[in-house]
Order: sequence, then structure tokens, then C-alpha cells
Amino acid sequence: MSVTAAQGFRASGVTAGLKPSGRPDVAVVVNDGPQHAAAGVFTTNRVAAAPVRLSRAALADGRAAAVVLNSGGANAATGAAGLEDARRTVEHTAAALSVDPADVVVCSTGLIGERLAMPLLLEGVSAAAGSLSADGGGDAAVAIMTTDTVPKQALATGEGHVIGGMAKGAGMLAPGLATMLCVLTTDALLPSAVLDAALREAVRTTFDRADSDGCMSTNDTVVLLSSGASGATPDPGEFTELLRGVCADLARQLIGDAEGASHEIAIRVVGASTEAAAEAVARAVSRSNLFKAAVFGQDPNWGRVISAVGTVPEALAPFDADALDVSFNGVQVCRASGVGEDRSLVDLGAREVRVEIDLHAGSAEAIVWTNDLTHDYVHENSAYST
Amino acid sequence: MSVTAAQGFRASGVTAGLKPSGRPDVAVVVNDGPQHAAAGVFTTNRVAAAPVRLSRAALADGRAAAVVLNSGGANAATGAAGLEDARRTVEHTAAALSVDPADVVVCSTGLIGERLAMPLLLEGVSAAAGSLSADGGGDAAVAIMTTDTVPKQALATGEGHVIGGMAKGAGMLAPGLATMLCVLTTDALLPSAVLDAALREAVRTTFDRADSDGCMSTNDTVVLLSSGASGATPDPGEFTELLRGVCADLARQLIGDAEGASHEIAIRVVGASTEAAAEAVARAVSRSNLFKAAVFGQDPNWGRVISAVGTVPEALAPFDADALDVSFNGVQVCRASGVGEDRSLVDLGAREVRVEIDLHAGSAEAIVWTNDLTHDYVHENSAYST
Repeated sequence: MSVTAAQGFRASGVTAGLKPSGRPDVAVVVNDGPQHAAAGVFTTNRVAAAPVRLSRAALADGRAAAVVLNSGGANAATGAAGLEDARRTVEHTAAALSVDPADVVVCSTGLIGERLAMPLLLEGVSAAAGSLSADGGGDAAVAIMTTDTVPKQALATGEGHVIGGMAKGAGMLAPGLATMLCVLTTDALLPSAVLDAALREAVRTTFDRADSDGCMSTNDTVVLLSSGASGATPDPGEFTELLRGVCADLARQLIGDAEGASHEIAIRVVGASTEAAAEAVARAVSRSNLFKAAVFGQDPNWGRVISAVGTVPEALAPFDADALDVSFNGVQVCRASGVGEDRSLVDLGAREVRVEIDLHAGSAEAIVWTNDLTHDYVHENSAYST
Repeated sequence: MSVTAAQGFRASGVTAGLKPSGRPDVAVVVNDGPQHAAAGVFTTNRVAAAPVRLSRAALADGRAAAVVLNSGGANAATGAAGLEDARRTVEHTAAALSVDPADVVVCSTGLIGERLAMPLLLEGVSAAAGSLSADGGGDAAVAIMTTDTVPKQALATGEGHVIGGMAKGAGMLAPGLATMLCVLTTDALLPSAVLDAALREAVRTTFDRADSDGCMSTNDTVVLLSSGASGATPDPGEFTELLRGVCADLARQLIGDAEGASHEIAIRVVGASTEAAAEAVARAVSRSNLFKAAVFGQDPNWGRVISAVGTVPEALAPFDADALDVSFNGVQVCRASGVGEDRSLVDLGAREVRVEIDLHAGSAEAIVWTNDLTHDYVHENSAYST
């Protein structure tokens, strides 16, 4: 149920003092091999944080021996000095673990625009390197939390191998990766090219479709490490599906713990001409503040849904604007773009809300997960600098 | 200061009973000529309301003699029956005013997905037609309000002619027109082709850059009527600038009265390669809920600004992600994508906030206006169905 569930991995989480709260803030995950294959997916934000720039380069050769992560500071928008800080963190980690600095991935999360407290961080890395254990995954998952209220971990078991993972992220959740850090580990014996393809496909339909508040972060990183320690070499397709399951589980946990949210909303678009069309429509709805505020108010406001659907360009998603059906939790409140079943039949009291939109334009579909827009979201994000 | 400021126009506003509040809800604006040239701009939302569909057709020939508007119901997502309701409204108005139904523009605003109370509306149209006056512009401006707290009117005086206008809109404010109805009148003697070009250009840089909450409506309509009663034929370029001033004034009033907002935010992007690039960047920032919530909390959070800037694709807006400057109310809190002046120097206590972003990639610029994300916004839009 963690990054140490797969054979060949150790992890730890310690308190370095980067967070004013005094909570754990430095984690290390080590791949003890025998192989050190790896793959990564990063934010597409052009204002990428220093650790993202270094880690992208480190993973270019498909190898990684360790991941060092800190909360309590994003090391983003910190210029050349921030890049140097990230480099020092990598070198310090490599020395403590006796691995090549080129094989260390670094991740940071927290406030943008502030330098990291380097002496504290490096001491923390030393402490984390000294307390690595084969059951340290849980500690690591706690140490990467920011405004998360619970740690997020997942596990899936394949034939003779397992995939484990941890993730953090509670605000600035959007596609092109939700704002999040995620480390996935497996003891399957697969080359980095297979890991890379599996990771991209798994992320595409999971993390990339968790769109809590439409805001894309500077630090998003998903890393997959393979130790090969099980000796099992699964079929790439089966491995991809297993990995997708772990990513979906973690993405769902992120949406479930999104800052200030009172509802988790699955927007499923069916009857689309292509999957891309379905995704575009679902994403447009997921970004409508009016729709999100309505769900907070437990109002099955289908007018706001079809207003959002109507903003998607025809070139992206062909459909007849007079033929849209919308249901909330199974009640079809909108039929053929007009009034359908009685909206009072819809109960939005439960935390999970299912909105389904039928475009009647094909057979493709996609689901985007989002959250409602609440007083707590405004409160957390007006009172808390990130 | 209203739609009746220009010679050749009469207007009225009455209470038909469409609104539960009992406030005025039907307005009529009549062009008494001598000419009846007109132009219109409409929502690009594919789920266009019935009145938008009819009015688009009515204005295709560049002629209009009257506009009939109602609040208390959007007549959107009402299917064939809603289209028939809009048609009956047009015919009833035409008969009451003795004009051709093909020359009547119809606008509705209010709840989506509900039929209009036609007997009340038609009675209201009769009453409005019977109370038209050359100083009825103020009454008309009141009758088109929904959640607006104040009526919006504007006036500009050119050489020998004037342009007056009224608008409504307080939520669902976004580009491709803010959610709004706007009627503009002029006594300048200009052909409809000139009116059309002037209106499109004026709207492009005013209403289309008021992006309160990113949500595009189904009913947005801006109509310009010319009576030619002044006999003056201004230079088209000068007329366009005068019209732009009236539209900018009204757009500013809309942002100033946006639902639940406590700040009006001008996001000015300079140093862009093209105006389109500047607009794309400004709009990305205007749609960041994290940025908007930070302004509500009076937090000059430049990290959230550059995070939003970084989401704009390079093909749309080329810039060096390490060279961004950001200032809040003149204090340059971010320099070269890193820490700049002390953020404590920024005072966001006043209602108007100026954010300037320098891309250092050219000399083009654009301003997009938006609002902050507040508890009142969430409250109004979770408790009130629109």
C-alpha cells in the first residue's frame, strides 16, 4: 500500500524544519535494484520549477536510483539560485546514498517564489538517508503533504509483481497534471521505454483528468521507478492497465482531499465523436465556476452545464446544440437541450456527484473529475499563500 | 446618459410581473428614424437562446426599428416552444409599434431552461409600447436588470451627434461577450456596414475583455441602432473611437457591479509579441481561481500570476519564462520570474487593483478586466439559480 510495497525499495520521511508547523517535510525513496529503470512525466507549465528542470534532465536516460522530495517550499520562481539549491540537494542526496547524482530525481512542493532553507533541507536529507527502511513508505507519504489532510497511497498486484505509489496535492489541481507529486514503484522487470509508454498512457486518463480548480502548477511530477526485483516481466499492456489503476486510485484520492471541497464531481461525457471531444466538453464543464458553485449549493443546474458545453468550439467537438441530454446522479434533468425530468428528484446531498452529458454525436466518452466551488475553497486560498 | 440621449429614440420600462420581486422587467427601445440602420453582436455560445437566434436573423439585413427586452427569464434551452415564444413576442411588439416584425430585435435575460410567462410578457410589451417617451431611457435601463444592483448607462458626444447606451449583466460575465444585454443608440447618419464594423471593433476591446468569471452566457447581445436624426455623418474612425468609449464605460460598470466581487482587477500585459498574445496571457490570469482568491485576501501573490502565465502555449504567446516581471498597483513584486520588491509594499485595500505583466517579448499590449473570487460570489451562485 505504499512505495515500499514493491521489492527492492526503501523509503523514509523526516522532519527537517522547513514547515512552520513542524510536520515531516523531507522524504527519500531509494531503488536498490537490481535494475534502475525509470520514467517521468512533468508539468507542461512553462514556468517550471527548478526541481522539475533538473529531474527532467535526470530522467532523460531512463535511469534513476532515488527520489528526494520536500514539502514546505516549491523552489519555483527562484531563478539561478534556486536551480543551484536543487543541484546541491541532488548532490547531497547522491553522496548520502552513494549513487550517481545523475540518477537522483528531486521534487519540491509548497510556496512559490521563496528560496528553500538549505541548511535545514540538507540536514533533513542526511537524516532521511539514515532512516531508510523497507517499510518506510508510509512515512514518506506523510512527509510530502502540504495542505493535504491525509496521505495518499495505492497498491496493485499483478502476476508475480506489484506496483505501489504515493501522491500529494490538494490545491492548484489541474491537468497537464494536477498539482501534485507522485512516486510510483514496481518490482516488475521492464525496460525504461516500456515504463515510459505505460506511464504516459496511465497519466493521460487519470491525473490529467483530475481538474479540481483549473490551475496548473509549476512543480507537477510523476515518477515511476522499477527495481526488477521480482524478476517478473509482465505484458506491457497488462502492466499499463495495472498502472492506470494505481494512478486512478491516487487521482481519486487527490480529488477526494481537494482544498475546501464538499463534493467530488465526475463529469462523464458520452456520445462524443472522439475521446478528445468528450474530454474537451467535460473539461469545459469542470472549469465553470457557476456550475461548481451550483453543486456546492446542491442545485442540479443543468442550464449552467449546457452553457459550458456550448463554449467548446465545433472544430473540437461537433454536436447538435439542440440535442444535448444532461443527468445528475441518474436523473435526466435536461433532454434535447430542454427541460427533462423534475430537478427536485435529484439529491446532491452525498459527497460524490455524477453528471452525465450525452452529445449524441458518436460513441466516444471520457470522464473528468472536479470539485465544487465552496466557501472553504475561497477561504483557504485567500488566507493561505501558495 | 441613456438610450434616449440620441435624437430619434424613445424608450420605456415597465413591470410585467415576470420577476417574483415585482421589479420592472420589460423594456422597449424604438428608433423613430429617419433611418433605421442597425448592427448586432451576439454570444458565440453554441447553446444560443431563442431570442439570440431570432435577433441574429433580424439584423442580417442591417435594419432594425425596435428592441424589446425582458428580464425575469432567459428563454434559453427552451426548444421549439421557446423559439415560438420569442417569435410571438416579436410579432406582438411589431403590431403594437406598427413596424415590420422583421425589424424587431428581441432580448431576454434571467433563468435558463424555463418558459417565459407569455400572457404577462405580452401584456407588459403592450404597456411598454404605450408608455414610450423621449426620456424613457432610464426606465428601460432599470427594467433589464437581473442581479445587477445598479442600472448601467453611458453617453458620448461627437461632432453634431451622440451615442448613448444601456447594459445589464452581473454574473456569467465572460468574453465572446460578457453575459449581458446592451443597447446602443446614435443619431449619427451612418450606413449599417459602418455601424457593424464600428461595433465589432468596439466590442472586441471592451466587452470581450471583461471576463468576470470565465463563464459565457447563452444570451449575450449588443445592438447598435442609428436614427440618423442628427443629420451628421462622422468619420467612421472617429465614430468607432467614440463608440469604443461608450462600450468601455459600460463594460467597466459591469465589472464594477459583478456578483459578489470586492475587487475590480485590470490585468495589463505589456511587452507581448502581438495583441493576441497579450490578450491570451491576460485572460489566462483572469481565469485563475487561485489568483482571484488571493486578490480577495489582499495577497499580491505573484507566484499564482506567473503560474497562470506559464499555462499559455508558446505558439500563442512566445516569451522567456525566466524573464517575467509582475507588478501589483505599481510595486514590482516579481522581477525576471523571481522575487522583486517587497510584497508588503503592496496595498490591495482599494476596490481597484492593477496587475501589470511584462513579457519582454515585443511591444504589444492588452488589458483584461476581471473580479476577485469571494465568499459572496460563491454564496450568490450556490444559492441563486440562473
